[in-house]
Amino acid sequence: MKKVYFLFAAVLLFSSSSLAQNQDSITIKKIADDILTNGTVFENLRYLCKKIGPRLSGSANAQKAVLATARMLKEAGADTVYMQPCMVPQWVRGAKETGFIKLADNSKFNLHLCAIGNTVGTAAAGLSAPVVEVKSMAELHQLGAAAIKDKIVFFNIEMNPTYINTFQAYGEDGAGRFMGPAEAARYGAVGAMVRSLASNVNDYPHTGVTRYNDSFPKIPAVCISTRDANWLSEQLKLKKVTTAYFKTDCKMLADAPSFNVIGEIWGTEFPGEIISVGGHLDSWDLAEGANDDGSGVTQSIEIIRALKANDIKPKRTIRAVMFMNEENGGRGGEAYLQNALQKNEHHIFALESDEGGFSPRGFSLEMTAEKEQKIKQWLPLFYNYGVYFMETGGSGSDVEPVLKTGAALAGLSPDSQRYFDIHHAATDVFENVSERELKLGAVNMAALIWLVSEYGL
Amino acid sequence: MKKVYFLFAAVLLFSSSSLAQNQDSITIKKIADDILTNGTVFENLRYLCKKIGPRLSGSANAQKAVLATARMLKEAGADTVYMQPCMVPQWVRGAKETGFIKLADNSKFNLHLCAIGNTVGTAAAGLSAPVVEVKSMAELHQLGAAAIKDKIVFFNIEMNPTYINTFQAYGEDGAGRFMGPAEAARYGAVGAMVRSLASNVNDYPHTGVTRYNDSFPKIPAVCISTRDANWLSEQLKLKKVTTAYFKTDCKMLADAPSFNVIGEIWGTEFPGEIISVGGHLDSWDLAEGANDDGSGVTQSIEIIRALKANDIKPKRTIRAVMFMNEENGGRGGEAYLQNALQKNEHHIFALESDEGGFSPRGFSLEMTAEKEQKIKQWLPLFYNYGVYFMETGGSGSDVEPVLKTGAALAGLSPDSQRYFDIHHAATDVFENVSERELKLGAVNMAALIWLVSEYGL
Repeated sequence: MKKVYFLFAAVLLFSSSSLAQNQDSITIKKIADDILTNGTVFENLRYLCKKIGPRLSGSANAQKAVLATARMLKEAGADTVYMQPCMVPQWVRGAKETGFIKLADNSKFNLHLCAIGNTVGTAAAGLSAPVVEVKSMAELHQLGAAAIKDKIVFFNIEMNPTYINTFQAYGEDGAGRFMGPAEAARYGAVGAMVRSLASNVNDYPHTGVTRYNDSFPKIPAVCISTRDANWLSEQLKLKKVTTAYFKTDCKMLADAPSFNVIGEIWGTEFPGEIISVGGHLDSWDLAEGANDDGSGVTQSIEIIRALKANDIKPKRTIRAVMFMNEENGGRGGEAYLQNALQKNEHHIFALESDEGGFSPRGFSLEMTAEKEQKIKQWLPLFYNYGVYFMETGGSGSDVEPVLKTGAALAGLSPDSQRYFDIHHAATDVFENVSERELKLGAVNMAALIWLVSEYGL
Repeated sequence: MKKVYFLFAAVLLFSSSSLAQNQDSITIKKIADDILTNGTVFENLRYLCKKIGPRLSGSANAQKAVLATARMLKEAGADTVYMQPCMVPQWVRGAKETGFIKLADNSKFNLHLCAIGNTVGTAAAGLSAPVVEVKSMAELHQLGAAAIKDKIVFFNIEMNPTYINTFQAYGEDGAGRFMGPAEAARYGAVGAMVRSLASNVNDYPHTGVTRYNDSFPKIPAVCISTRDANWLSEQLKLKKVTTAYFKTDCKMLADAPSFNVIGEIWGTEFPGEIISVGGHLDSWDLAEGANDDGSGVTQSIEIIRALKANDIKPKRTIRAVMFMNEENGGRGGEAYLQNALQKNEHHIFALESDEGGFSPRGFSLEMTAEKEQKIKQWLPLFYNYGVYFMETGGSGSDVEPVLKTGAALAGLSPDSQRYFDIHHAATDVFENVSERELKLGAVNMAALIWLVSEYGL
C-alpha cells in the first residue's frame, strides 16, 4: 500500500501542470475512439486463431503466423516490415498421450493428461509404476530416494486461491511443473505426473515447459487435469491405487529456422530512439493461443494501425515485435537482443503484453526509480480507460533481455482472474477473448507507447 | 478526473490513522480468504442456472428460485429467513416468435428476433408492413406521421463503442427499446423492430422491457439481432426491402403472487440499524439469468455465509435481499420499501449488485457528501482486492426506493466490457461467469458491508 500513497503524492503535485495533459488526453481519446470503433485487432486475432491455430515453434503453423503477421503489419501501414531470423527448438508431441490409474480392484481410471513441453517420451510400451504424491517440493526432498526411487511422483500442488493476482500463485505453486521432473529424477523417480497449473477444476490438462537438470536422467512427465488430480489424491488417501500408467510419444527434434516479425513507424525527431511493443507469436500446440499470446501480438500490431490511421507521427521510432519461441526456449527474445547489440540500437522503452487479452487494470514497471516516476505522472490520463495502477514489477520474458541495453521495461497487467482457467489448455481459444476487453488493452498500450514517443524517458 | 483528485486528497489525510485500518484489513483478509477458498457462491449460482433456469416473474421457475434461495440462506447460517409477499406482473412469451424481411426479388430473409418484454402480441396471422429505419429518437420525431403511419419502425441505434463504461451507452442509446414502440405509436406505426442493445455483433436477439404510453395504441414490438440489424440497414440503403413481417404470441396475464426472499444476521449492538445487500431473483426467459442477476443474488447470500462461517458478529443487522420482479415491474423493490415504512425500519445502507458477476472494479455511491466521504476513506482497504474507485453515481433500481427512508445507497461496479454481449440474451448462462471473478465481487461486497456494520455511517 505504501507504493500507492507515494503515487498519489505524485499525482497531486502533477495536477497543477495540466495543460499538456489536456492536449495529451485529446490525442489519447482520438486513438481510443478509433481502436474501439475501427480497430482490426479482434479480426486479426480471429485469423491467427481460426485460420492458423496452434503455433508451436518450428511448426508449419508458426511459419504461417510469421507470414500472416508480416502481412498484418503491412496492412496496418508500418513504414517497414521485416523478419529477424532465429533458430528455435522443435519439440513435437507425436501421437496423443494416454494414461490411467490402476486400482486395487484391478479397474482402470483413464486420465485427462498431456505431455509436458520439452519432455522426452516414454518407451513405446509406456511407463507403469507405483505413485507417490507430494504436496510441495519440500515434501519431495523430505521423502528422498527411499520413497521416490522407481516411482512416478505425483506433484499435487494447488494454485493458492487466496492470491488476488493469479500470476503470484502461478509463480509460487508452479515448481511441480517447472522443475518437478528434474527434482524427482534426482531421487531415482521414473516419471512425473503433475497437477495442471490451473485456477479452476475441470477435465482439461494444461501443458507448459519443464526444465531438466543435466546431472540427472530426463524422465517422462505429464500434466493431469485438476479434477483428475483431486480424484487421484483421494484414491491415494484411501490406499486404492496400485500403479499409474502413461504413454507419451513426444521428442525434441533438431533446431529449426524461424523468425521474429517486426514492423516500425519511424520517429520524426529521434528516429534512433526505439520504443518497442510486443507479444509472442508462438503458442502451445493444444489450442489456438488466443490469450497466450495471440492477444499481445495483435494488440501490438493495432498500435501501429491506430497511429497510422490517425496520422499521428511519433517523434521516436515505434517498433511492434512479434517474438518467436517464448513458450519453450525464449530464442526470439535472445535473437532480438543480439541484433540490437550488434546494430548498437538505442532502446529507450520496451512494453510487453503477455498476460492475456483481458480488461486492462494497470502496468507493471521494470526500470529506474526516476523513469518510473516520470511514467507514473501520466497515470491520470489512463483512468478514463480503466487503468488505475502503475507499480514496480516484472515486465515479460521476451523484453527482459533488452534490459541489458539499459532500456526501461513494462508489462501490461490485465485482469488476471480468468487467465489460468485456460492457460496452455485446449480452452485457450478465440471464443474466450472479449472484443472490447482486447481493444481496451490495445488502447492503454497505445496511450503509453505514444506518451513515451512524445516525451521520451 | 476532478473526483479522483478529491479522493486522493482524502486518502492522504487518512493515511495517518492507520491502526484501525490494520485491524480492519486483517478481518477483511479473513473474509476474502474464506470466500476464495470455501465460498459456495459459484455452486449456488450453478443451481439457480442449471437446476432452475429462467426465472421470469410469475413463472413456476421464479417460485422455485424463491424456495431455493430461502434454503441457501438457511444453509448460509442466517439468523432468520423469511419471504416478503408481493404481487407481480406475469408476462408470457407464448409460442416462439418468427419473422422475416421480404425483399424486392420476393425472397425472404429470416430474422433472429424475440418479443420485447411486456409487449402485446401480434394478430394470429402476424404483422406485415413496410419498414422505416431511424437512427435516433430525434429522427423519428422529424419524420413524423407522414413517414411513420402504418409502418414498422426499425430503431437501429447502435451502442456507442467509445464509451468505456458500457452502461453509459446502454442508457444513452437504449431509447429505441425503452420507449421506441410508444413513440412510434404516437405517429401511427403498427409495429416496432428494435436493434438489440448489444455491444457485439452476432445472431442473438436481446430482450428487455419497453414502456407503453397509455395515450397511444400498444403496438407489437421485437428486438432483432445486431447482425440482422446491420444487414437490414444495408438492404434498406440498397432499396431492396419490400416489407417486414413478424408474429409474436406474447401477452400480459393477471398479476400473480410472489415474494422477495430475505435472510438476516442480527446486529449485536445496534440491531435496529439495517444494512441490506441484494440482487434480483427474477430473470428474463431466454436464458439462465447468470449474470443478470443470479450473480448478485448468490453474492448476497455469500456475505451471510462468510460472516457466519468466520464467526464475525456484525454490530448492525445485515440483511441479504433477493428482490423479485426487477426486470419487468420493480414490484419487489417497491414492496420492500412499503414494508420498511410500515415497520418503521431504520435502513442506514443498501448495496446492490446487478451489473454482472465480472471482476469488481469499484463502487458507485448514492448518498450525502458527508457519508460518501466516510466511505471513501476506506478505499485503500480495497486495493488488494482489485477495487480502485468509489465515485458518485447511481446504485441500482431495487434499492433505489429505499432512498426515501434516508438510507445511503451503493452499487457494485464490476468490469462492464462483457455485460452487454450477453445481457437479456440466450447467452446469459452459467458458462459465461468466472468463478474467481464472481467470488472477488462477493469479497469486495462483504468488505464494504462489514465496514458499514462496524462503523455505521
